[in-house]
Amino acid sequence: MTQTVTQQQFEHLKAFGTATIHEAQGQKGALDGALKPLDPTVRMAGPALTVDLRPGDNLMVHYALTKARPGDVLVLDAKAFTEAGPWGDVLTLAAQQVGLAGLVINGAVRDGSAIVEMGFPVFCRGLSIKGTNKNQPGKVNVPVCIGGVSISPGDIVVGDRDGLVVVAAEEIETVIAKSVEREEKEVWMREQLLQGKTMVDLLGLAETLERFGLN
Amino acid sequence: MTQTVTQQQFEHLKAFGTATIHEAQGQKGALDGALKPLDPTVRMAGPALTVDLRPGDNLMVHYALTKARPGDVLVLDAKAFTEAGPWGDVLTLAAQQVGLAGLVINGAVRDGSAIVEMGFPVFCRGLSIKGTNKNQPGKVNVPVCIGGVSISPGDIVVGDRDGLVVVAAEEIETVIAKSVEREEKEVWMREQLLQGKTMVDLLGLAETLERFGLN
Amino acid sequence: MTQTVTQQQFEHLKAFGTATIHEAQGQKGALDGALKPLDPTVRMAGPALTVDLRPGDNLMVHYALTKARPGDVLVLDAKAFTEAGPWGDVLTLAAQQVGLAGLVINGAVRDGSAIVEMGFPVFCRGLSIKGTNKNQPGKVNVPVCIGGVSISPGDIVVGDRDGLVVVAAEEIETVIAKSVEREEKEVWMREQLLQGKTMVDLLGLAETLERFGLN
Amino acid sequence: MTQTVTQQQFEHLKAFGTATIHEAQGQKGALDGALKPLDPTVRMAGPALTVDLRPGDNLMVHYALTKARPGDVLVLDAKAFTEAGPWGDVLTLAAQQVGLAGLVINGAVRDGSAIVEMGFPVFCRGLSIKGTNKNQPGKVNVPVCIGGVSISPGDIVVGDRDGLVVVAAEEIETVIAKSVEREEKEVWMREQLLQGKTMVDLLGLAETLERFGLN
Amino acid sequence: MTQTVTQQQFEHLKAFGTATIHEAQGQKGALDGALKPLDPTVRMAGPALTVDLRPGDNLMVHYALTKARPGDVLVLDAKAFTEAGPWGDVLTLAAQQVGLAGLVINGAVRDGSAIVEMGFPVFCRGLSIKGTNKNQPGKVNVPVCIGGVSISPGDIVVGDRDGLVVVAAEEIETVIAKSVEREEKEVWMREQLLQGKTMVDLLGLAETLERFGLN
Amino acid sequence: MTQTVTQQQFEHLKAFGTATIHEAQGQKGALDGALKPLDPTVRMAGPALTVDLRPGDNLMVHYALTKARPGDVLVLDAKAFTEAGPWGDVLTLAAQQVGLAGLVINGAVRDGSAIVEMGFPVFCRGLSIKGTNKNQPGKVNVPVCIGGVSISPGDIVVGDRDGLVVVAAEEIETVIAKSVEREEKEVWMREQLLQGKTMVDLLGLAETLERFGLN
Repeated sequence: MTQTVTQQQFEHLKAFGTATIHEAQGQKGALDGALKPLDPTVRMAGPALTVDLRPGDNLMVHYALTKARPGDVLVLDAKAFTEAGPWGDVLTLAAQQVGLAGLVINGAVRDGSAIVEMGFPVFCRGLSIKGTNKNQPGKVNVPVCIGGVSISPGDIVVGDRDGLVVVAAEEIETVIAKSVEREEKEVWMREQLLQGKTMVDLLGLAETLERFGLN
Repeated sequence: MTQTVTQQQFEHLKAFGTATIHEAQGQKGALDGALKPLDPTVRMAGPALTVDLRPGDNLMVHYALTKARPGDVLVLDAKAFTEAGPWGDVLTLAAQQVGLAGLVINGAVRDGSAIVEMGFPVFCRGLSIKGTNKNQPGKVNVPVCIGGVSISPGDIVVGDRDGLVVVAAEEIETVIAKSVEREEKEVWMREQLLQGKTMVDLLGLAETLERFGLN
Repeated sequence: MTQTVTQQQFEHLKAFGTATIHEAQGQKGALDGALKPLDPTVRMAGPALTVDLRPGDNLMVHYALTKARPGDVLVLDAKAFTEAGPWGDVLTLAAQQVGLAGLVINGAVRDGSAIVEMGFPVFCRGLSIKGTNKNQPGKVNVPVCIGGVSISPGDIVVGDRDGLVVVAAEEIETVIAKSVEREEKEVWMREQLLQGKTMVDLLGLAETLERFGLN
Repeated sequence: MTQTVTQQQFEHLKAFGTATIHEAQGQKGALDGALKPLDPTVRMAGPALTVDLRPGDNLMVHYALTKARPGDVLVLDAKAFTEAGPWGDVLTLAAQQVGLAGLVINGAVRDGSAIVEMGFPVFCRGLSIKGTNKNQPGKVNVPVCIGGVSISPGDIVVGDRDGLVVVAAEEIETVIAKSVEREEKEVWMREQLLQGKTMVDLLGLAETLERFGLN
Repeated sequence: MTQTVTQQQFEHLKAFGTATIHEAQGQKGALDGALKPLDPTVRMAGPALTVDLRPGDNLMVHYALTKARPGDVLVLDAKAFTEAGPWGDVLTLAAQQVGLAGLVINGAVRDGSAIVEMGFPVFCRGLSIKGTNKNQPGKVNVPVCIGGVSISPGDIVVGDRDGLVVVAAEEIETVIAKSVEREEKEVWMREQLLQGKTMVDLLGLAETLERFGLN
Repeated sequence: MTQTVTQQQFEHLKAFGTATIHEAQGQKGALDGALKPLDPTVRMAGPALTVDLRPGDNLMVHYALTKARPGDVLVLDAKAFTEAGPWGDVLTLAAQQVGLAGLVINGAVRDGSAIVEMGFPVFCRGLSIKGTNKNQPGKVNVPVCIGGVSISPGDIVVGDRDGLVVVAAEEIETVIAKSVEREEKEVWMREQLLQGKTMVDLLGLAETLERFGLN
């Protein structure tokens, strides 16, 4: 995997927002909506460092951090188990030392208040104070399938208040181009709406509505 | 349906809050608690413009907006499907242009941050960045049954942080009168509590408790 | 039950936070993560006044308040039913008059905005505007089993943004001592992380990883 | 309400099955799929005797049975609470004595094995051995809104393995006629399929597919 | 714990059924209804051998079997995690060799068909083919709190199609006596119903109904 | 994709069962446990014909059938929406005419009784009588990600009472070989158990237990 996404491209992705990117790449790559940011104001983008781990154990999380590169988004598949928090404030500091861009966990975290204060983007299914053991093996940098989306190492993960979307590294340029197009179209639509046009006009839906006998 | 609720009456309803109204009308009309405001500080009241639509498609939303009148609350039955967001920031602008009072969707929306910033009241089951198509027919201004409550066109929908309650237009006057009564009683109860009375005294529960051998 | 926890000890518990306490007492006593604070900034600690009540009825809540002592945490087992709110703003005032430290309800409350404004700590499963009757008997000061934890009268309940944890009154001293130890260890770990150490080093995980062929 | 549905019409409805009826009346009236028969082989049809009751209490169930007429389907709205069983084997005998056609409960029942053995059709959300009290008032023969459908007293409720559908009494004749039509069409489709035709041909979907560039 | 429940008493408990026992002991001890038998026809009763284990690991299950005595019901708290099956057909054979009376797992099992064929009573939250590791420690014969009920080692666990109920060993005699009473009362009620009485008469509910203005 | 799995290999896979295959291929490929067979006695194996469709619409199902080859397992991603049944008895007949081996739907079906009678293997999340429209486009033979597993066209899908597992076509031989090994080992373990050995002995767990101070 030769991931060559530039910092500027990551900034573009963060600015577009997840909903725009999802549409721009043909309505694919969005994780299910129960994976939410702890702090709704954060925006995150970076290549995935994936981890397949057992629920209730975080040995592999510690291991994965030794493989992390600055800018990575750590993606932990804890099997949607939300009654343990394999991630907390100390690991957040460790992640910030490494320079991680953020965390996605198919599961829960603890120390929610500290994490928000530390300004580290975390997307999770909930909070749990229940700790974990350090006994279970797992796999780092393998494809994981969470929230209805398959994520491979190096795939770009973008997150904001609305949720998470995954973009293949090799499609970044196209997705950015289409996102720009989409944003320009939305600007135009907003202008038209302010001038009194309806969405039915702007989207040319009259014909479809007529086919259903609606007008 | 000849809906003649005055703007002042809507303001009264917003001020009472949903819990008071629900009690005042005999503990009926409250939707299930998973339908929540995006922004917990909003308050909303208006007559329902109902839409029966298919999950994953928003053709009927665009159509419904052409039928909307200022002050209406758009009520979309998307069948509790939360893995698509048939409503976003552009539609919010369209709704504000028409003068809608707010949105209730039995489903999810996207562009959560933008909607909150725009100050438009939205009550939903979640956020989803997944877009929708524009191919499915549906019905506008028919009764829908969402969150355990049947809502007919013109029914008054009131919402705040606690949730949503529906009031029949012809019962508005009675409901307001009873809400005032209830509020006055609560004022009196607060005064009594501050003077050291217990709720058991104030509500006259001693006899019931005694029947169960509790004192 | 001779509960002799001091006010200072309660302050210690609040300061540690629930995640630390849970670990310090051997990973036990944490309720499930769906029991959350209405206001994520609150911190609460106090001995449990437990109530076993029927869903949809709050007679026993009024009764329990007549048994409450200042500093108690009222623990209501409403059987995880979230479509009624047996607790609201008037009861909150009554509780504050009695001097309750907070409320835990295995169910929902209403008047969420007022409760947050009044600064009373409430941990619940949701909000519901649906009112309750006053007809059902129940039991006060009996063990209840909620969120996967058995709570006896007098057990210490601690809550914050992360959730809730229960500590046996007779174990308070030990738990505080171990929490202090744990905090000191975390301070040391933070220092080490800032100096470039990895979690694998700090926790001595190399051997375990090697056993699984990971390095 | 002058319900004049004949026994023969009820037999017709039972024979069609719920899916056919739902389609025949324009895709409306189907309750959510979590309301299932205890015994998947039963078929049930009859006018609704509706009851609005509190979760965890069955006083109103006993009361409602005094209002029941032979052939009625008892429809209990227990607010989707599944951790109590307000209905069991003794009530089943009482129901059979009255001649009830079956039970729909937005909640749970107990004595599942006995009920199945007694051959009484019960549609519910689950089984619960937890008993109920007899202290709470409620309402008999009022509209209830369960499983996403509003049911008024006298509406016809039909149930089988697939689920439940509600038909307005005054639409029975039309619904039966359209169900017959639908069945005849399905017979024809089966014949055509056996002769090698495809569903795309039989339903004339080629044009729609072409519009989407599919062939 | 000196558990002296006789085999005959276990047979009595199995014959009464869980709903009767739950009522007989004052409406307590019933687990939540999502814990169901794989085979609805089984009946099970025996003293609990409890195990606190991590989700996704079954080392402790193997260990617990070395502590089992004939007639024990193995109670595994797998933290309600249903995406792993720490129990399968080989363990079922091991359990039968030891003479276990059955299994309760707060989680899932695999090899469902084989287990049913082998005639071993299993109560679980679901089926999962996902295997487990053998790396995590846990605790045997400690109190566990599952399905809303605290279960201590030696508590009697009774299960049938309706669900599970727990009885304290020292209360067995009383519970059996009260269950017999309850059954006799039900026999009498059935006779009365067959003679045309109503439940309102038999339970003496007329006064309560009158208090609510119902007759 | 040149899928050359033989009929005999499919028979082997059906005979092993899903739990064995899952273990044999390294604990991967198992779908979540809520995807269950309508009839628990069926066994199914075949290459996936995948379809990405919108919830509430089955146009693409009809289209996909025109692409099906005998022996295929139709895999429909209806986005986990269970309040519509895009598949029923007529489509089952169409599928049998084409020679499909079975159906997996990330959603619900209707006509459950008829489907079971017709002997066609269906794995789904539930039953719903609610019909669908025929207006929405979608994609055939693209990777879909359902139940936590990514399924590509031609991947082998195996199902039985326990659930579903996916095997890459090119790994079939290895998986079969390892499944045979696993079965032989289980035969040996059964023999050893019958001769009085414990699982701790057979699996060599004594050392691990000792490390945790358990013996």
